[in-house]
Amino acid sequence: MKTRKCLYPVLSGLMGLALTIASGQLLAMEALPALPPVPADNPLSAARIELGRMLYFDPRLSVDGSVSCNSCHNVMTNGTDNRPVSVGVKGQHGGRSAPTVFNAAYLTAQFWDGRAATLEDQARGPVLNPVEMGMPSASAVTRRLQRIPGYVDSFAEVFGGSGGLSFDNVLKAIASYERTLVTPNSAFDRYMRGDKAAMSKAALRGMKQVEQVGCTACHNGPNFAGPVALPMGQPFLQKFPTYTNNAYVKKYHLDKDTGRYTVTHKVEDKHMWRVPTWRNVALTAPYFHNGSVKTLDEAVRVMARTQLNKTLSDEAVADIVAFLSSLTGKIPPQTLPVLPQTVGMSVLGD
Amino acid sequence: MKTRKCLYPVLSGLMGLALTIASGQLLAMEALPALPPVPADNPLSAARIELGRMLYFDPRLSVDGSVSCNSCHNVMTNGTDNRPVSVGVKGQHGGRSAPTVFNAAYLTAQFWDGRAATLEDQARGPVLNPVEMGMPSASAVTRRLQRIPGYVDSFAEVFGGSGGLSFDNVLKAIASYERTLVTPNSAFDRYMRGDKAAMSKAALRGMKQVEQVGCTACHNGPNFAGPVALPMGQPFLQKFPTYTNNAYVKKYHLDKDTGRYTVTHKVEDKHMWRVPTWRNVALTAPYFHNGSVKTLDEAVRVMARTQLNKTLSDEAVADIVAFLSSLTGKIPPQTLPVLPQTVGMSVLGD
Repeated sequence: MKTRKCLYPVLSGLMGLALTIASGQLLAMEALPALPPVPADNPLSAARIELGRMLYFDPRLSVDGSVSCNSCHNVMTNGTDNRPVSVGVKGQHGGRSAPTVFNAAYLTAQFWDGRAATLEDQARGPVLNPVEMGMPSASAVTRRLQRIPGYVDSFAEVFGGSGGLSFDNVLKAIASYERTLVTPNSAFDRYMRGDKAAMSKAALRGMKQVEQVGCTACHNGPNFAGPVALPMGQPFLQKFPTYTNNAYVKKYHLDKDTGRYTVTHKVEDKHMWRVPTWRNVALTAPYFHNGSVKTLDEAVRVMARTQLNKTLSDEAVADIVAFLSSLTGKIPPQTLPVLPQTVGMSVLGD
Repeated sequence: MKTRKCLYPVLSGLMGLALTIASGQLLAMEALPALPPVPADNPLSAARIELGRMLYFDPRLSVDGSVSCNSCHNVMTNGTDNRPVSVGVKGQHGGRSAPTVFNAAYLTAQFWDGRAATLEDQARGPVLNPVEMGMPSASAVTRRLQRIPGYVDSFAEVFGGSGGLSFDNVLKAIASYERTLVTPNSAFDRYMRGDKAAMSKAALRGMKQVEQVGCTACHNGPNFAGPVALPMGQPFLQKFPTYTNNAYVKKYHLDKDTGRYTVTHKVEDKHMWRVPTWRNVALTAPYFHNGSVKTLDEAVRVMARTQLNKTLSDEAVADIVAFLSSLTGKIPPQTLPVLPQTVGMSVLGD
């Protein structure tokens, strides 16, 4: 297959030589696999990835041309924006903190409440959300892109046999690009592949702590976000906060948002949340669904208290933070996309 | 000199082989020189350029982390944002349309009213402007960057002998990067260097038209923005609109903003504006200081009527647009910057 042939040089360059090695030492901790799952109806190809990268960076996917996917999920930093909640069009604020796009491809569901089954489904949300990118409809997106000749050509080339320039194909291209946004070769991954000097002593102590304290009951698997063997679309959910009788819940408004209940309106989904990844967590402050906790050490304390009813010593917190910092991976090197242009007119403001 | 040695591989890659060739054929039309002027107190170096590129893309230079230089002067497209006026922090709108950053390094003054003498001076404006990036003070910028270890290291390395991490050095780094944002090798440049097939017949007719009609009385020199031999800091100013007794002036509110007068408050500066570049003008719709004119053909008609009191035929307009389109250059290929990170905390929102 041509697309497969195109793919491998791209991915091998992007992902390095990360290999899946199941750990015999520590339950459920493993290095990041080189390839995230790829759905059968959206096979990866270099051309899809390249088109998706242009779309990902293109602010013309927002109603007023001021917000791109990258505005809130900034791949030049950590796949997020380091803000409590993001800024959408017209200065509006979202209700939840932007999760990192890095390694999202390994999750079995997207969004904090797991309401999207795939990266394709996820990408639909912000584009059409009035407080994010604010496009009024899927057809408004395709009408605008139809006026940009370079996109018309690219969609014909990449999706010529499967719908051409459609909103579904916009989402497929973006999701293809996002499947390359993986960060292997963290200190932890190198350690798991045999480089025993890769992690500091504090990080190694922290690695034991997160098991002893109980964190890895939920934060497990290669992405530290729960089992990757769940069917795509089935989120790995946990209740948060579990223990509510403490000062943190009130101080940080942790029980204000009812999580998955806001989508399903089922009582059993109240305060249920998709378990977020630990990878690059040291870079993605502030923390939690509402971005209310400013520092990682405080986030560790909050989690121990609200989820496990434990109060950690300062030493334990420092060791766990050192371990979490060892999960910071390498951002894949990329070229700056050059977006297709319009001649003599703008597609914005009409 | 070490910095000079570092520079050439970078610039030769970025700029290709563009050479200054004074035209013997057409008064005041020339190919773009390979190097823009570089001030003696900010010599170019690969390290300054690289640091400047990071800062240019870093939204943490805005008060809420939502706006970078690139947000309004997007180097992935045309050095601007294709909006009438840009969107700053808190959804605020600026008063004038963002000029393209491409080839701004050849101008002898910056901003629509020429109020900044250099790219360094220009960069100061948006960072501290409350409706653009909204930082409260120069010291607030440096305090924030001081908390990002990667920047502390980079400034020590690049500006160790000359002030380290200071706001002036932030501006120097950004300006250094901007001096690489030049777009040689347009069809016009290739034509001027001897490739007589580079321009279409329509574009060649348009090249004659702009002289005959009188446009090049102001839009001349290699950047089509007036003489490049003026002292740095002296803008090449013209009155706009000159002929006000026409429907365009009213329809597009062309005389509402008094231009340079808003800076100097001198009567002779009323409605005086720095002559903008023609390079890449086909990509930078909408047009004029207030972004009120949506298409390039209409902009050509407006200019002929308001500046030269002429009404052009549709054919003349089409030929001039073809010529202006031949001034679209090649965006320099770049790698996506990776911004320095903070561990366990965000520098925003405090």
